[in-house]
Amino acid sequence: MKEYLFGADVGGTTVKLGVFRTEGILVDKWEIPTRTEDNGENIIPDIADTCQNYIAGHDLEKDDFAGIGMGIPGPVKEDGTVQGCVNLGWGFRNVKKEMEKALGIPAYVDNDANAAALGEMWAGGAKGVRNLIMITLGTGLGGGIIINEKTVNGSDGFGGEIGHITIHPEEEERCGCGRRGCIEQFCSANGIVRVASRALKTYKEDSLLKKIKKFTSKDIFDAAKKKDAFAISQLERFGNDLGLAMSNWATMTDPEIFVIGGGVSRAGKALTDVVGKYYRKYALPGQRDIPIVLATLGNDAGIYGCARLVIG
Amino acid sequence: MKEYLFGADVGGTTVKLGVFRTEGILVDKWEIPTRTEDNGENIIPDIADTCQNYIAGHDLEKDDFAGIGMGIPGPVKEDGTVQGCVNLGWGFRNVKKEMEKALGIPAYVDNDANAAALGEMWAGGAKGVRNLIMITLGTGLGGGIIINEKTVNGSDGFGGEIGHITIHPEEEERCGCGRRGCIEQFCSANGIVRVASRALKTYKEDSLLKKIKKFTSKDIFDAAKKKDAFAISQLERFGNDLGLAMSNWATMTDPEIFVIGGGVSRAGKALTDVVGKYYRKYALPGQRDIPIVLATLGNDAGIYGCARLVIG
Repeated sequence: MKEYLFGADVGGTTVKLGVFRTEGILVDKWEIPTRTEDNGENIIPDIADTCQNYIAGHDLEKDDFAGIGMGIPGPVKEDGTVQGCVNLGWGFRNVKKEMEKALGIPAYVDNDANAAALGEMWAGGAKGVRNLIMITLGTGLGGGIIINEKTVNGSDGFGGEIGHITIHPEEEERCGCGRRGCIEQFCSANGIVRVASRALKTYKEDSLLKKIKKFTSKDIFDAAKKKDAFAISQLERFGNDLGLAMSNWATMTDPEIFVIGGGVSRAGKALTDVVGKYYRKYALPGQRDIPIVLATLGNDAGIYGCARLVIG
Repeated sequence: MKEYLFGADVGGTTVKLGVFRTEGILVDKWEIPTRTEDNGENIIPDIADTCQNYIAGHDLEKDDFAGIGMGIPGPVKEDGTVQGCVNLGWGFRNVKKEMEKALGIPAYVDNDANAAALGEMWAGGAKGVRNLIMITLGTGLGGGIIINEKTVNGSDGFGGEIGHITIHPEEEERCGCGRRGCIEQFCSANGIVRVASRALKTYKEDSLLKKIKKFTSKDIFDAAKKKDAFAISQLERFGNDLGLAMSNWATMTDPEIFVIGGGVSRAGKALTDVVGKYYRKYALPGQRDIPIVLATLGNDAGIYGCARLVIG
């Protein structure tokens, strides 16, 4: 009886691992370092080793595991291959095949942001939902799209790369991707601070943010709570940009729910309120009621979703 | 042996019908009027009747047909229900169930633009492809998204309603949907003419279009071919708007191909050239090579796609 699943969320610094029961209960979790040297040759064997050690140390058998799901910080094709992943030092790699050979159980591979969306569907803010769009507002802006309980990878693994829609083609600074005007430059944690810092330079009135040497997106939310006019204007700008983009995303896949995660989502209701206000302003009448909720699994969304990949 | 399929593309004026072999060959096609009176009560019985007459008149049996696929001009949920369809006079209706009862063979229902995309995948410009985005540039701007050979309906049937992404929130005129700034107002046949007419009012130089009382989008393409500077500027404006939108759509579902259909697509290479130029300007590096092709089935795309729905 295969009642367990492994989830391995592979980041550039650590691999987060989780053991789950097939019904979605987290049994154990731990981390190992990601050894990116030698073109990341050791990453897959290291994961296989730590899983084998777990099995041996817990009086279990390989046969108790239905499989391992893996999340990779880059585009992943549906066949489990990766064309290249800078953060891991990888060139082309058939991750699915290598993992199955190393560990001897079925392996499933997806992009890490897609996996996080699947995790929130399985056990988080979108539990019980079959169609959703997840937006991760961290240092960057990531996304994951789920249709009928499956992640959208697309033909080359770029499915759900929503951080790089161009929303302001007139922008002169470059995005991390080399292009200009991506939503990541305006609505990620870094993007919110970038736009606010630029605006503050020419802002004549007083603002709490002028007293902070290097303010963060959290400082902007905090100042807005204290009725700081500049901070409020920046949140409105952010809400307008993200709400408009979400209304456009909705016309593509018509989700049941939007889930917002990542560091910025700790702002809670202040975030969903301002984004929801503009989302409803722009959305099609029949889509205005789509709920916008916060992610609930935090950093564990990845391992949940990786494990859920095994269920298919 | 079930070797035939019915396809019924239900429009506000006529229902287009087709009989296909399961391998994708069109055997017969004809039209019947769409009787929208009495809340469209007769539409489904009329389709059932004409199909039954076809079967009887061709020495066939119901058992020779694997099913009937239907395209509806409005949102359709995955279970084959329609919440309402103004063009047909319908309120809520379980189209799948009613059709199966009336004709006695399995019925499958989808939005007409989604069906057209499926048709182009089965036998048209995107033959052999599994992931695509189809853009129909007619009086309005419609769309259909295919992922792994299935249309994207979304949770309430609004999947692929890409004509109503907001691209110019500052627009003051209203779109047919009641909102402002939808891409349909800028890139459909009517939208191209609307923007050009407005710009021509303040255009000081000469232009061939000034000699035409009510010019069409075709006139703009024709004038651009004759090096008319104003017409060229309008095509560039159009290409920029649509190319940018396509690059943003690509980040969502990462298609293998874009297919452009509808009346405007008769402009051919002049259309794909100008759209492709701007698409490549804005697209993610890994997505710049996605081909942009013309639809090839014309008005038959709908019946092809409806029949293809039966195959699943």
